[in-house]
Amino acid sequence: MSLDAIPIHVITPPAGEPGLTGNAPPLLRELAEQVKRLLETGESSAIDLSALPLTPTDLDWLHEKLGAGEIAVTLQASGESTLNETACPGIWWVTHRNEQGAVTSQFIEVAFVPELVKAHPQDVAIGLENLELMISDL
Amino acid sequence: MSLDAIPIHVITPPAGEPGLTGNAPPLLRELAEQVKRLLETGESSAIDLSALPLTPTDLDWLHEKLGAGEIAVTLQASGESTLNETACPGIWWVTHRNEQGAVTSQFIEVAFVPELVKAHPQDVAIGLENLELMISDL
Repeated sequence: MSLDAIPIHVITPPAGEPGLTGNAPPLLRELAEQVKRLLETGESSAIDLSALPLTPTDLDWLHEKLGAGEIAVTLQASGESTLNETACPGIWWVTHRNEQGAVTSQFIEVAFVPELVKAHPQDVAIGLENLELMISDL
Repeated sequence: MSLDAIPIHVITPPAGEPGLTGNAPPLLRELAEQVKRLLETGESSAIDLSALPLTPTDLDWLHEKLGAGEIAVTLQASGESTLNETACPGIWWVTHRNEQGAVTSQFIEVAFVPELVKAHPQDVAIGLENLELMISDL
């Protein structure tokens, strides 16, 4: 049998990876606008990923494009939340999980620091009272 | 042999646990002052534990008194740093390690959020340029 007799099928690659809806790239443009606003006015913002028509492949694509930064935060409060800086400083990937570890919501937050990481003055005031009680018992 | 014949030695407990120098309790009082200042003026502060005459037992005692909070931050930058909220909101236990994992310094920071966790505007601006380049290549 000569090589010429082997049927050859030219396979055209699909326009995008299967599972990519095309909804993710506009999100990157929206994020760039939000980062610009953060720098200009200090205003933070967030995109609720659970509320958008994104497939797991879209989310993986976004995750890969944004990359991983140096800072990772975990917050334990009726389930674990992770707030991870991306390779674009000021853009944070935020995942909330319930007590069983299932993801309940995902956000991309644009902020110098995510709101949840900050101690709130009223909690600090309560903590100070407890600390002063502890000191008086020493 | 009657019970009366058993020699009884009354052991007086030592004044403090061995290894406790007595230098740690004043630190708690200093921290309470710093938290008060944070609430009143917003001013952050830090105590460099490596610069104080504290034994490992003193540090364990302080760690135990301050307790563990809900937020834990890791920062990867030529060695891992951990910035852990204590049970007193606004008080963070900060440990810096070198690339070999050895502790290089320890601080107690009093702040709504530790300075190192915040994205710096100039890094955000550089990140935005990279993001815009990435978008133009899509």
